[in-house]
Amino acid sequence: MRPRVVIAGAGFSGLWAAKTLANQPVDVILVDRNNYHTFLPLLYQVAAAELEPEDIAYPVRSILRRFKNVRFVLAEINRIDLDKRTVFSDEYAITYDYLILATGSSTQFFGTPGAAENSFQLKTLEQGITLRNHILQCFELASRNIDDDKRQQMLTFTIVGGGPTGVEFAGALAELIHGPLRKDYPAIDFDYVKVVIVEAANSVLLSFPKILRDYALDRLYRMKVNVMLETIVDKVTPDTVHFKDKNILPTQTVVWTAGICADPVAKTWGLPTARNGLLMVLPTLEVQGRDEVSVIGDLSSMEEARRQLPMTAPVAVQQGAHAAKNIIRKLRGTQTTPFVYKDRGAMVTIGRNTAVALVSKRAFKGFFAWILWLIVHLINLIGFRNRLMVVINWTMDYLLFERAIRLILPLRAFQARKKKQT
Amino acid sequence: MRPRVVIAGAGFSGLWAAKTLANQPVDVILVDRNNYHTFLPLLYQVAAAELEPEDIAYPVRSILRRFKNVRFVLAEINRIDLDKRTVFSDEYAITYDYLILATGSSTQFFGTPGAAENSFQLKTLEQGITLRNHILQCFELASRNIDDDKRQQMLTFTIVGGGPTGVEFAGALAELIHGPLRKDYPAIDFDYVKVVIVEAANSVLLSFPKILRDYALDRLYRMKVNVMLETIVDKVTPDTVHFKDKNILPTQTVVWTAGICADPVAKTWGLPTARNGLLMVLPTLEVQGRDEVSVIGDLSSMEEARRQLPMTAPVAVQQGAHAAKNIIRKLRGTQTTPFVYKDRGAMVTIGRNTAVALVSKRAFKGFFAWILWLIVHLINLIGFRNRLMVVINWTMDYLLFERAIRLILPLRAFQARKKKQT
Repeated sequence: MRPRVVIAGAGFSGLWAAKTLANQPVDVILVDRNNYHTFLPLLYQVAAAELEPEDIAYPVRSILRRFKNVRFVLAEINRIDLDKRTVFSDEYAITYDYLILATGSSTQFFGTPGAAENSFQLKTLEQGITLRNHILQCFELASRNIDDDKRQQMLTFTIVGGGPTGVEFAGALAELIHGPLRKDYPAIDFDYVKVVIVEAANSVLLSFPKILRDYALDRLYRMKVNVMLETIVDKVTPDTVHFKDKNILPTQTVVWTAGICADPVAKTWGLPTARNGLLMVLPTLEVQGRDEVSVIGDLSSMEEARRQLPMTAPVAVQQGAHAAKNIIRKLRGTQTTPFVYKDRGAMVTIGRNTAVALVSKRAFKGFFAWILWLIVHLINLIGFRNRLMVVINWTMDYLLFERAIRLILPLRAFQARKKKQT
Repeated sequence: MRPRVVIAGAGFSGLWAAKTLANQPVDVILVDRNNYHTFLPLLYQVAAAELEPEDIAYPVRSILRRFKNVRFVLAEINRIDLDKRTVFSDEYAITYDYLILATGSSTQFFGTPGAAENSFQLKTLEQGITLRNHILQCFELASRNIDDDKRQQMLTFTIVGGGPTGVEFAGALAELIHGPLRKDYPAIDFDYVKVVIVEAANSVLLSFPKILRDYALDRLYRMKVNVMLETIVDKVTPDTVHFKDKNILPTQTVVWTAGICADPVAKTWGLPTARNGLLMVLPTLEVQGRDEVSVIGDLSSMEEARRQLPMTAPVAVQQGAHAAKNIIRKLRGTQTTPFVYKDRGAMVTIGRNTAVALVSKRAFKGFFAWILWLIVHLINLIGFRNRLMVVINWTMDYLLFERAIRLILPLRAFQARKKKQT
C-alpha cells in the first residue's frame, strides 16, 4: 500500500500540491466542493461582465486526467478526526496518511452590523455571477419611472476596501458603466451614477509604493471613481451605508472586499489558530505536533521574518509545491525544509492601458505595467481554450469598447434579489 | 403622437418584428422577461456541455441600440386589457395602438402523471444549464461507491420524443459521454451508461422522408443511442419511467422534448384559442375581430392549406417580419396581406460529420448535410463574438474530442437537486 495524501481544496495551493505529487509513490485524493478550479485573480472581471464564468474556471478532472495516481472527489470537508487520520464530508469518510489543508479564505466583515447580510462578496464564481446579475438589474430598474432618490440609490455602487480587488473591480465597473451601459440605457441620466471606493486608510493599494498609489488615485479620479479615504463603515443596510462620521450613503450595492478570514469550519478542526481564524503552521508548513498535516494557501498563517505573507496566487502556488515536496522528502527519509516565498512582484490593473506593477522592487505604471499584467494573467490561466476566450473577450472590449456578456442569468437569482428589494 | 406598437417577447418572431419596424413612423416597445435573446436551435448544445450559455444568448438592448424608435422593457406580461388596449406586468401598464404577441411556447406533457414534476425541459437557457449541471452531477454521483442498481439509474439518460430536439440532444449527449466523460471518470464502467430515446411513432424525425429517417436511426444505433419506437410513456417518477406496456425503465434523468403548447397565461387573455392553447389567427396573422392584435411565432396557430406550420425559427422570423409589414401597410392605408411561409427546408444534426437535411425537397445526409447545418446555424447566430466563440468551441470539440465547459454551476441548483435525490 502506498501512503495516501488527501488534499482538501482545489484552489491554487491545493492544485499545485496535487500536481507536484503526480507520478510520485503516493496515492493522492483531491477533494473540492466544486468540480472546477477558479482563476480567482480574474473573478472581478466576471462581476464586471467582461468575462464569462466559464473563461476563468476549469474542470478539475480534466487537469488531473493525465496523473494516474491522483483521484478527484466532489465533496465538502466539514469534519476532521486528527487521531484517526480521517476527513469527513456528508457522504464520505476518507482516511489519510498525510493531509494537506487548502480550503482558502472567507470574507471578514469585522463584526460590522448588517455587512454580512447586505453586502456582495468576490470570493467565489457564484458570487461573481450574482454581483454581475445585480449590477445589470440595477440599471434595468433605474430605467423605469421611479423617483430620483430611488434612482440615485440604484445607481450608487459602493466598494468597501481599496486593496487590489477593490481597485480592480472599481475600475472595471466604471468602464462597464461609462462605456457599454451608457449606450444601452439612453433613458438614464448618467450623472446619477456613482462608483465609490471606501477605504479606512489614507490611500488605496497600501502594499505599493507612494508613486504607484498616487498614480492609482489619480487614474481612479479620472475614471469618475469616487475614492473616500480615511472613512470607516459603521453599518450596512439593504439600501444605505453608514459611516463612523455619521454620514450616510444611499446605495443599493455594497461590495465588501475589505477583509479576509478563515472559513468558520476551520475553527472546529482542533488545530492551532492564529489571527482571523487562520491555521498556524511551522515554517515547513506543517502543523506543530501534527507533522502529517500541512496547511497552505490563504488558510495558512505563517510568519516569515515577522511579516504575514500576502494572500495571493503566487504564495499559494509556491506553498502548494513546497508542502508536496516536503511530504516526498519525509517519504524518502530526508529533512523537510522551511518555505521561503520567492516574491516576483505584484500588479494591479485599473483600466484600459492603466496598471501599476512592482517587479523586483522596481515600480512600473501605465501602458507597460498594463501589458505586463495582461501577459502574466494570460500565461497563468489554465487551459488553451480559456486563454483564447479571454484574449478574444479582452480584444473585443479593447477595440470596440464593448462587453458582450451582459446577461442577467440565472433568472432564479434575479427573482430572489428582486423580492428582497421591493 | 406616433402610433405605439408593443411587442411581447424577444424571441425570433418578436425580435424580427421589432427590426422590421425600426426607423418606421411608429414607437416600438419590446417587452421580454429576460434581458437577452436566446438562439434556441443550439440550446441542446448548452445542455450537452458543448457551448457556453453566453454563446447562444445576446443582450436585447445591444441589438436595439441602433434603432432610435425601439425601446426595451424588462418585464413579463401577465394580463391584457383588450378594450383599453393595455398590457400589464407586475410593475407596468403599457398602452398600445398595435400589439404583437410573440411569447412562444411551453412544454406539453399530455397530462402524463409525474412528467411535469420529474422531467427536464429544453425550452429556456436556464433549463439548458440546469440539465447540464444535472448530467455532470450524475457522473459524479455514479463515481461514488454506490450499489449497481443505483448506478444503473444514475447513468440512464432518457429522452422522451424523437423529433429534431430529441435526436439532436441524444446525439450530442452520446458524444459527450463516450468522449470526454469516459476519459474523466476512469472509475466508472461505461457499459452501465444508456442514452435512450422514447418515441410513440414508428420512427424518429417524422417530418423527414424515409431515407433520412432510416439514416438517422442507423446512426443513432451506432452512437450507442437506444431508440425505443412505438413506446408510450405512462408515468414518470423521480427515478423511473413507466411505459404503457407495463415495462419500467430505471432512470434518474428524463428529458421531455415530446410536445409543445402555449404558456398557460395565454388562455387568460380572452383571445380565440386553438389546439394546445395556441392563439388562433387569420392568414394576415391578426386576431379575428381584433385586428390591432397580431400573434406570431410558436404562440400562433394558423392553418396554411390545412397544414399546421412547424414551430421553427424560420417560420417565426418570417412571421415577425410579415406582421410588422402588415402594421406598416395599415398605417399607410393599404391592404394587409396573408402570410405565406417560404419553406427553405429543415435540417437536424446527429453527431460529428452526421446530419440530415431537406432542402427544396431534396434529401441530403452525412458530411455534406452536416457542413450545411454548421454554416446555416453560424450565419443565423446574432453577434460576431458569439459566432467566433461557437466556431472555437465546435473546432476544439471536433479536433480534440473535448468539451471544455463541464462546470457544475451554479452550486445552488446542484445542492437543491442533491437533496431531492438522497
